[in-house]
Amino acid sequence: MHAAEGDATIPAMSTTSLDDLMHNLGRQARSAAAAMARASAAQKNAALRALAARLRAHVEPLQSANARDIERARAAGLSEPMVDRLKLTPKIIETCAQGCEQLAAMPDIIGEIIGLQQQPSGIRVGQMRVPIGVFGMIYESRPNVTIEAASLAIKSGNACILRGGSEAIDSNRALAALVQAALADAGLPPEAVQLVPTTDREAVGHLIAMPQYVDVIIPRGGKGLIERISREAKVPVIKHLDGNCHTYVDDPCDLDLAVKVTDNAKTQKYSPCNATESLLVARGVAAAFLPRIGAIFAAKGVEMRCCPESKAILATVPGATVVDATEEDWSTEYLAPIISVKVVAGLDEAIDWINRYGSHHTDAILTTDHRHAQRFLREVDSSSVMVNTSTRFADGFEYGLGAEIGISTDKFHARGPVGVAGLTSLKYVVLGEGHIRT
Amino acid sequence: MHAAEGDATIPAMSTTSLDDLMHNLGRQARSAAAAMARASAAQKNAALRALAARLRAHVEPLQSANARDIERARAAGLSEPMVDRLKLTPKIIETCAQGCEQLAAMPDIIGEIIGLQQQPSGIRVGQMRVPIGVFGMIYESRPNVTIEAASLAIKSGNACILRGGSEAIDSNRALAALVQAALADAGLPPEAVQLVPTTDREAVGHLIAMPQYVDVIIPRGGKGLIERISREAKVPVIKHLDGNCHTYVDDPCDLDLAVKVTDNAKTQKYSPCNATESLLVARGVAAAFLPRIGAIFAAKGVEMRCCPESKAILATVPGATVVDATEEDWSTEYLAPIISVKVVAGLDEAIDWINRYGSHHTDAILTTDHRHAQRFLREVDSSSVMVNTSTRFADGFEYGLGAEIGISTDKFHARGPVGVAGLTSLKYVVLGEGHIRT
Repeated sequence: MHAAEGDATIPAMSTTSLDDLMHNLGRQARSAAAAMARASAAQKNAALRALAARLRAHVEPLQSANARDIERARAAGLSEPMVDRLKLTPKIIETCAQGCEQLAAMPDIIGEIIGLQQQPSGIRVGQMRVPIGVFGMIYESRPNVTIEAASLAIKSGNACILRGGSEAIDSNRALAALVQAALADAGLPPEAVQLVPTTDREAVGHLIAMPQYVDVIIPRGGKGLIERISREAKVPVIKHLDGNCHTYVDDPCDLDLAVKVTDNAKTQKYSPCNATESLLVARGVAAAFLPRIGAIFAAKGVEMRCCPESKAILATVPGATVVDATEEDWSTEYLAPIISVKVVAGLDEAIDWINRYGSHHTDAILTTDHRHAQRFLREVDSSSVMVNTSTRFADGFEYGLGAEIGISTDKFHARGPVGVAGLTSLKYVVLGEGHIRT
Repeated sequence: MHAAEGDATIPAMSTTSLDDLMHNLGRQARSAAAAMARASAAQKNAALRALAARLRAHVEPLQSANARDIERARAAGLSEPMVDRLKLTPKIIETCAQGCEQLAAMPDIIGEIIGLQQQPSGIRVGQMRVPIGVFGMIYESRPNVTIEAASLAIKSGNACILRGGSEAIDSNRALAALVQAALADAGLPPEAVQLVPTTDREAVGHLIAMPQYVDVIIPRGGKGLIERISREAKVPVIKHLDGNCHTYVDDPCDLDLAVKVTDNAKTQKYSPCNATESLLVARGVAAAFLPRIGAIFAAKGVEMRCCPESKAILATVPGATVVDATEEDWSTEYLAPIISVKVVAGLDEAIDWINRYGSHHTDAILTTDHRHAQRFLREVDSSSVMVNTSTRFADGFEYGLGAEIGISTDKFHARGPVGVAGLTSLKYVVLGEGHIRT
């Protein structure tokens, strides 16, 4: 058993009491899930609005709790960027509150019946959207994820068990207390949203191995964490591995559009998973396109890791940092001002390349050719495929999901940004009037 | 390494060559899957019709191959019911051919785009239905499953690797050869449907542990087999565990309808997973309903395992076999002329009981109360929930899916009967005109 990390005041628990604790959370979540599945849309929306109000009314106490986390993090020697990710500013709290209100304003999809049709026997068969049940969420640092996960659980009629980063435990406890109060305000069980109250690392191992209580695990964090959880979990995992996103500049294309969109896809922000990490350019437009985007990358300090053909063109751009790409570069997610650049023969090579080196996250074609656009949409095997658009749009809010609990790079169940619908399943409903099978 | 079972003429392979063999199947499947995803609806339907024609043209050679399996099975001392399940009769072959033609006649759902809507930024976002990629199917005995799986793979634009029962290896080889010829007829890669050519038991272990080549495993067989595969698989499993289906006779109900439907749900056939195994009766109608259904069960030789209250009523039915139910009976799938019977207070207890003791497969309420029907549909946590209908209707054909590759008792991805749609995923498509994120 490891000692609790980052919080020396919380003693590590004995294995038995941790086991009891986690099973108790599980039992309570399962029981609350049944009540949440029955809850009316009005009740769930009331809870979300109550949560927004409570967040706004508790900016000061939330900041006090957050200050304790930050102080502890600095004392433990965490880097300033890491400390930054911990911060719960009034602006972030207001964004959380608005997110709850936006979810409350969205239609309730629980209970909708899809495709009800009469069959030859006379029975009518459709599919009803219902909550999954209980999800476990494992995340790091940013305490606002607590509110995002809680609000999506409420809207989707699920219960959840949240395991935030140990460095944010005070902030998360304060936020979870507001969530539970808001649930009670609306007459819903507070146990619908529970925070694992200990920072004991072993708790994660328990959370991912209770199929009787937890239906799905959603990890958010580094690739190593997610791979480990996927490997060890006894329940399905909605996982987001890396985002090695491609922008492919096709021949023919609108060069002005291509320059504008490629620039945005790479440089608008370097750290998000939907930033473009690899640029493919069709040979026919390489000589016209590459010097223009190269000049922008040079001005913004973006290093270009190139194939020989693109290097020959980009090396002539004043001030450009141009180096030879290694095989590893083609599958690397930089999350930094670095981009790999490759000249391809055309659409076929681009599609093959993306399916081979990409991470099945988000890939875009910039083209004026309708058939090329259709083939790219159909044949690129990624969770988001785009035409004439910046890969940076791959996001639950931009897609109209209202909120996003993560982006799935899997094909199974949910794919791409996961919102309320990704936390539901469809069960068959069959309506008869005494029909029997003969 | 185990020796091959049931076919002494095929030597067990060395671990290395089996590993090579399975990886080779995987590589070929992955490559074929890309071609299948690109195939037109016309091509896929042509392959299905070609398969139907080839099945009809090869009834005799198929029966010869099947005769070898049957002879070997009898020599190995398999029971006659087991031998029966192996049989590939002209009637079964014709049913397979018709199934292929029915699938060919259905609309192609690959490439359909759902919910394309403009977002505030101006981008248009929808979801395109695409094949999952490669599925592995593990099944026992019945060789016609080879054709069901192959035809669903073709229609859904997937590739598949089939691992049939070793006792049916000759039949399955003959069927798989027809499938591959039909694929070639339509200009599609024969490797889209591959049969594991060895009966080596170790092959299953390889098939379920090649995430780079196989996206999902679909096991069909006994609960033990499915639990083991779920435990050991390195990829998602669409699994069907037991079918402990309930029929709940509500107060108020139409007694004639309730008698007719309950009789059908239990006695129309005892072996299917959607037969009712447990009968719940509301206290208010128990005295009127139970003697009538009890008389039918008595006449058909159905043993009733009862709670004390139902036993007191049913014990008065002439000729009835009435015994005390044990706690274990409430969660047992009999697949036999046995039914458990329980009197409940009403709807609430019925829903709680089903969610506690059921297997989340298929459960029905027989009622005249609209609100009770709605609550049952919403609150019973099963893959199929039914009103005034026999549970025996839970079936892909009856639901209009055209074919069924299995019934999922999971909530994740596919739930209930799994047809073509269950073998697909939805990826986001984003259409812009040079949109950038600001």
